Amino acid sequence: MHETTFAAGLPSTPFLAVEAGIMERNLAAMAKHAADAGLSLRPHAKTHKVPQIARKQLELGAVGLTVATLGEAEVFADAGCTDLFLAYPLWVTGARAARIRALAGRATLSLGIDSAESARELGRAVAGSGVRAVVEVDSGHHRSGVQPADAAEVALAAQAAGLDVVGVFTFPGHGYGPGKRPQAAADEAAALATAAAALTRAGLSAAVISGGSTPTVAGADSSVLTEIRPGVYVFNDAQQVELGSCTFEDVALSAVATVVSSSGNTVILDAGSKVLGADQPAWATGCGRILEHPEARITALSEHHATVVFPEGAAVPARGSILRAIPNHVCAAVNLADELVVLREGVLEDVWPVAARGRNN
Amino acid sequence: MHETTFAAGLPSTPFLAVEAGIMERNLAAMAKHAADAGLSLRPHAKTHKVPQIARKQLELGAVGLTVATLGEAEVFADAGCTDLFLAYPLWVTGARAARIRALAGRATLSLGIDSAESARELGRAVAGSGVRAVVEVDSGHHRSGVQPADAAEVALAAQAAGLDVVGVFTFPGHGYGPGKRPQAAADEAAALATAAAALTRAGLSAAVISGGSTPTVAGADSSVLTEIRPGVYVFNDAQQVELGSCTFEDVALSAVATVVSSSGNTVILDAGSKVLGADQPAWATGCGRILEHPEARITALSEHHATVVFPEGAAVPARGSILRAIPNHVCAAVNLADELVVLREGVLEDVWPVAARGRNN
Repeated sequence: MHETTFAAGLPSTPFLAVEAGIMERNLAAMAKHAADAGLSLRPHAKTHKVPQIARKQLELGAVGLTVATLGEAEVFADAGCTDLFLAYPLWVTGARAARIRALAGRATLSLGIDSAESARELGRAVAGSGVRAVVEVDSGHHRSGVQPADAAEVALAAQAAGLDVVGVFTFPGHGYGPGKRPQAAADEAAALATAAAALTRAGLSAAVISGGSTPTVAGADSSVLTEIRPGVYVFNDAQQVELGSCTFEDVALSAVATVVSSSGNTVILDAGSKVLGADQPAWATGCGRILEHPEARITALSEHHATVVFPEGAAVPARGSILRAIPNHVCAAVNLADELVVLREGVLEDVWPVAARGRNN
Repeated sequence: MHETTFAAGLPSTPFLAVEAGIMERNLAAMAKHAADAGLSLRPHAKTHKVPQIARKQLELGAVGLTVATLGEAEVFADAGCTDLFLAYPLWVTGARAARIRALAGRATLSLGIDSAESARELGRAVAGSGVRAVVEVDSGHHRSGVQPADAAEVALAAQAAGLDVVGVFTFPGHGYGPGKRPQAAADEAAALATAAAALTRAGLSAAVISGGSTPTVAGADSSVLTEIRPGVYVFNDAQQVELGSCTFEDVALSAVATVVSSSGNTVILDAGSKVLGADQPAWATGCGRILEHPEARITALSEHHATVVFPEGAAVPARGSILRAIPNHVCAAVNLADELVVLREGVLEDVWPVAARGRNN
């Protein structure tokens, strides 16, 4: 049984720890993958929400950042990032318009649109501020985004509303399923190719053809795409391990937790859903994984309890043991924490505030 | 179709709003229920994490607060609460011991224990500090807690370790299921009666016989219990509506959200799992509910998208409409927010910081 111990000076459990060496390796590998493929890399910063990590991504050649909310964009602009893409079909109300204008005054700002109606609304609110518009298309995830063939209609509405249309994007979220990564990457390329061609036929620019997500980025078609937007790769998580996007050795973030209770082949850790997040796709083996014990399953999470079941007859960690639990979905876990404890081979190196935590609007 | 509008001055969506009048009615009703039954009320503050609400609970007669973590206990002690029960089988490491001692110096502090081993560990760390110990028993939820008949063994170990044993508690979490509330309340009473009798036979005090949870509190057996610890009742949520613990009219907290995208009978709201939380029990109708549209179902949550499906042929809210989404599990949603916007009949009254948000250790 592998027991983990941590030096004095670390916080009481549970807390989120980042292994700096693994994170740096993940960052470098993705930068190389993008460079080798001739693709621009615009990492999604919603995963980490940390300016220190964003700076490393930019130093390694990222062309800018992707964000999910205006609040996140403001935090990363404050941290010195000058090229931000808010990949979301934001609805612009009065109060939000002033924030967008202010942000466009200090960064190159691109916003998603997925209907002629939202394009007109955006134009009314912020035309003339230099904001760029990128049309979202649905490549098979069926969440937001227009059908690829309809992209030109939305783009023309945006142009008529006074916006600078620069291209198209998609999120191939249907790649989050066992065996679905290659097909989702192919769908992504097909949808973007159709949408970009429609814009070109309509006399509009499709300089930006943006796709990607950690599960599909290995299959991103560089004959179509100009840009990829993976987020999770910086840390990885149990979902990515179980999807085959990475191995346990590539997981850089874990919740350091203590065994507080025990009965038979089951132990209770003090990291529950308020630390790990409650995401659990139907195909997951449980509510996360345990780095030291790949054979164990997290069968349930309460707010402050993880129920960890070991195989019958296996040795079970004693009460007081320290284990590292990895979340199913690291974006959710990071958004629960005020800070990340940075370790290098287990030794405390730094503490990073999660500066954009909770910036949901 | 019921449309919701909100006055200028409110934040951009999404944000969490509390209807003060409904919350006050919920607080008063639970205080009366406890008083009528002759039970002490010790509300679980993990739900709200807000000192302003804790003070209202204490003013209405609560004997003290329940908390889930030492960090929460510290926040509520700072806010002036002098009687705190940490209903969790905390494992006491060196760093945590000093915090417990400091807290016990300024509040009556009770801690959960669920093994002789953790009782000895707690005694070694904090005996003599005035900390009280309460033995956790398993009444059927099968998470933490000893079997009721074994409560005396744990209590005797605690006494031998120099702790002041004051009674027994349980969390009947198996009441979170359709039709399961009455049986879980009966199981709770049976387990607590067995455990309290075991303590008494061993010559120990069972002055505190504590149970309760919002689903089971209506069935709490006042011939056995001395105390109830509901938390969710302050706000209620979609789970409680679907379990029958309350109606939509009793739900005091919602995520105010905007329709940002639309296709056929489906709309996308800008409140996703980073606002509502991802909790979804198997028996839930979806990922939350919409107050204005009980006929709609939230069929999926991404981090910043809620997919809301309306019945075929039903009128669907236009893009830009404001809707109020209620989370499945309000404790998770509150823990994602930095502040709660307090409304009275839709008009802004106050903004409360979620002071104990993220205090997981």
